[in-house]
Amino acid sequence: MKTTSVKAYGTEAPEADLKQFNINRREVTTSDVEIDILWCGVCHSDLHFARNDWGMTQYPVVPGHEIVGKVTKVGAGVSKYKLGDLVAVGCLVDSCRTCANCKDDLEQYCGAWVGTYGGYDKHLDTNTHGGYSETIVVDEAFVLSVPENIDPAGIAPVLCAGITTWSPLRHWKVEKDSKVAVVGLGGLGHMAIKLAAALGAHVTLFSRSSNKVQDAKALGADKVIISTDEAQMEQAMGQFDLIIDTVPYAHDLNPYVGTLNTNGTLVVVGYLGPLDPMLVTVPMIMGRKAVAGSLIGGIAETQELLDFCGKHNITSDIEIIKMRDINTAYERMLKSDVKYRFVIDMKSLKS
Amino acid sequence: MKTTSVKAYGTEAPEADLKQFNINRREVTTSDVEIDILWCGVCHSDLHFARNDWGMTQYPVVPGHEIVGKVTKVGAGVSKYKLGDLVAVGCLVDSCRTCANCKDDLEQYCGAWVGTYGGYDKHLDTNTHGGYSETIVVDEAFVLSVPENIDPAGIAPVLCAGITTWSPLRHWKVEKDSKVAVVGLGGLGHMAIKLAAALGAHVTLFSRSSNKVQDAKALGADKVIISTDEAQMEQAMGQFDLIIDTVPYAHDLNPYVGTLNTNGTLVVVGYLGPLDPMLVTVPMIMGRKAVAGSLIGGIAETQELLDFCGKHNITSDIEIIKMRDINTAYERMLKSDVKYRFVIDMKSLKS
Repeated sequence: MKTTSVKAYGTEAPEADLKQFNINRREVTTSDVEIDILWCGVCHSDLHFARNDWGMTQYPVVPGHEIVGKVTKVGAGVSKYKLGDLVAVGCLVDSCRTCANCKDDLEQYCGAWVGTYGGYDKHLDTNTHGGYSETIVVDEAFVLSVPENIDPAGIAPVLCAGITTWSPLRHWKVEKDSKVAVVGLGGLGHMAIKLAAALGAHVTLFSRSSNKVQDAKALGADKVIISTDEAQMEQAMGQFDLIIDTVPYAHDLNPYVGTLNTNGTLVVVGYLGPLDPMLVTVPMIMGRKAVAGSLIGGIAETQELLDFCGKHNITSDIEIIKMRDINTAYERMLKSDVKYRFVIDMKSLKS
Repeated sequence: MKTTSVKAYGTEAPEADLKQFNINRREVTTSDVEIDILWCGVCHSDLHFARNDWGMTQYPVVPGHEIVGKVTKVGAGVSKYKLGDLVAVGCLVDSCRTCANCKDDLEQYCGAWVGTYGGYDKHLDTNTHGGYSETIVVDEAFVLSVPENIDPAGIAPVLCAGITTWSPLRHWKVEKDSKVAVVGLGGLGHMAIKLAAALGAHVTLFSRSSNKVQDAKALGADKVIISTDEAQMEQAMGQFDLIIDTVPYAHDLNPYVGTLNTNGTLVVVGYLGPLDPMLVTVPMIMGRKAVAGSLIGGIAETQELLDFCGKHNITSDIEIIKMRDINTAYERMLKSDVKYRFVIDMKSLKS
C-alpha cells in the first residue's frame, strides 16, 4: 500500500521523553479522508499510554486523540466530506460495524474498536498513530464535522474530555432542572460543568479545596461543596440525580453515594481499578441508587455534542502549547497545573 | 386509646428463643382495618431482627411482615375493604405520605416509613408488632387486596420475598426476551425466577452447586450456570440485561458484572454491607454497566404484583409450620434447609 512519510512526535520506550520522528500514513482508500492536523488536545491517557502505565503499550507510540484539522484529500467513495472541510477525529478510528453495540451507535463498547493510537492498523499492519503528527487518514465513518462558528483549538478537547462527560449526561437523561454534581475539576470536570449547565441542569462541584469555588462558578456551576467539610457533606445528602465522578485515582465513593437522590446514579468516568475503600451497599439499597461506569461516547453522539457546542458556543478552556513543549506539559499535567486542557498548535511541528 | 390484648409470638432478648406472650392491638381508627391473621411467612429479616443482628432492635419483638388474613372490622372512613375480604400486609404499615418518594408511590424510600415490626407505633407509643400474632390493625392505605383464586398461604411470601425481586424487574423494565440472571436460590431467588419467567424473560440461575439445576428449571429457569466453574463463567460474559443478586452475605460481584451486557445492571437485594472483595470499575466503564441496590417495593407496586400473581397463578413454594415450631424453623433457615419459605399457619397460635 502506498504511504506518505510525515513528521510526528512520540516515544519508543516508557521512560523516554517524547521526540520527533517520522511515521507513515496510508494513501486514502475509497472511504478514507486525509486530514491536515491543525490542533491536537493533550489527554491524560496520552501520558498513561506513552509511559505504559496500563501495561498494554506497544512502541513506538504517537499519542493524540483530540484532533481537529482540514480535509486535504478524500477517497472516491467519500460522500460526507470535501476538501477544505473542518473536521475532527476522537478516540476511535474504526470498529467491527456489525455487532449489537455498533448497530446501536455505541462503537465505544464494540469489542473490536480501533483506538486512534495504540490500536491495530489493518491497512499498514502496525500500531495506529494519533494526532501528534502532521496528518492522519481515517475512514469517513469515524470522521466528525466541526461547526465553523467556534474556535477550532478550543473544540479539540471536546473529542475526549467533552464526550466522556456528555455521554453520561445524555444516557441518564439530564435536562432542565436536573440536579447534577461533578466530582473533580480538571479537563473532564470543567467540561462536565459547562455541558450540564448548558443542558439547564442545576450543577454542583464537589472539590477538596475551596480555591476552586470562583473558577467553578465562572464555568457555570451553581454551587461548590467542599468534600472534606463534613457539615457541608451532611447537608448535601439525598439530592443529586446524577453525579459524574472524574477523579482519576481510587477514592471513597460512599460519601458521594449518600448525596444521590432516590434512583440516582454515580457514574465513574475517570478511574480504572478497584473501588478502594469498599463501596457499601446500604445507601444503595435504601434509595435504589447505582454506581456505574461510562466510556467516551459513540460517533453519532460525538457529532451531536459538536453540534451542541456550536449551537451553545461551548469550547474547552485551553492553554495552547508548541509540539516541542509536550514533555513539560506532561509534567505540569501530572501536577494539575493547567486550566483545563493543553492543546498543541500543530503548525509548530510542521515549521 | 382502647386496645385489645391478643396472643403473639416473639422475644424479649437477642439470645432468647421466641415464645408466646400477649400484645395490645389498637381499636380501629377511622381509616383502619382490623385483620384476623391466617398465614404469616417467615423472612430472614425476622430472624436478624429477633437476634439484633443489625444492632437496632428494641425489645420485645414480634416479627412477621408477610401477612395474609381476613378483615374483621373497618373504621368508619374505610372505603377499600369490607368485612370478610382477603387482605395482606407487607413490610410497611405507614410512611410520611407527603415527601417526593411517597408521592411517587415509593413509600419504601420515604425517610419516615414505619416497619410492620420494630417501627414506632404512634398510636400506642410502643414498637410496632408484626404478623406472628392473632390480629393486626393497619391503616387501609397500607393494606393490600389478595386475589381470591390463589392459595392464601403461598401468597404470604410474595409480600416480602416476592416484591423485593419484582420491584427491580419492573424498574429495570424486564419484558419478553429480556435476559435476566438470578444469583442464589433461596426465598428471594426462587421468587425472582418465577416472576422473571412469567414476564417472558430468558432466566438463568447462578448457583455454586450443581444440585440445584433440577429445582431451578422446575421453577422456570431456562439455564443454570455453576458460578464456581470458570469455563461456564467465561462463556457467560456480556449477556445479561439484569442480574438480581439475592445472596445475603459479602461475595465477589466482579465475575457477575462481567456477565452483564452493555447497559446492564446488577442489583443487590440481599446483602447490606461493604462490597468485599472490592468492585473493580474496569468492566463497568468498558460496558456502561451499573451495580445498584433495591429495597422491597411500594404499596401500589405490591398490589400490582399480587394482581399479577393472581392472573398468572404464581405463589411461593412453601413449607407450612405451626407457630410453636418457629425456633426450629429459624435454625433450619440458617442452614438454607427450606424449599423455599416457611409459612406459619396462624390457627396454631389461636388454638
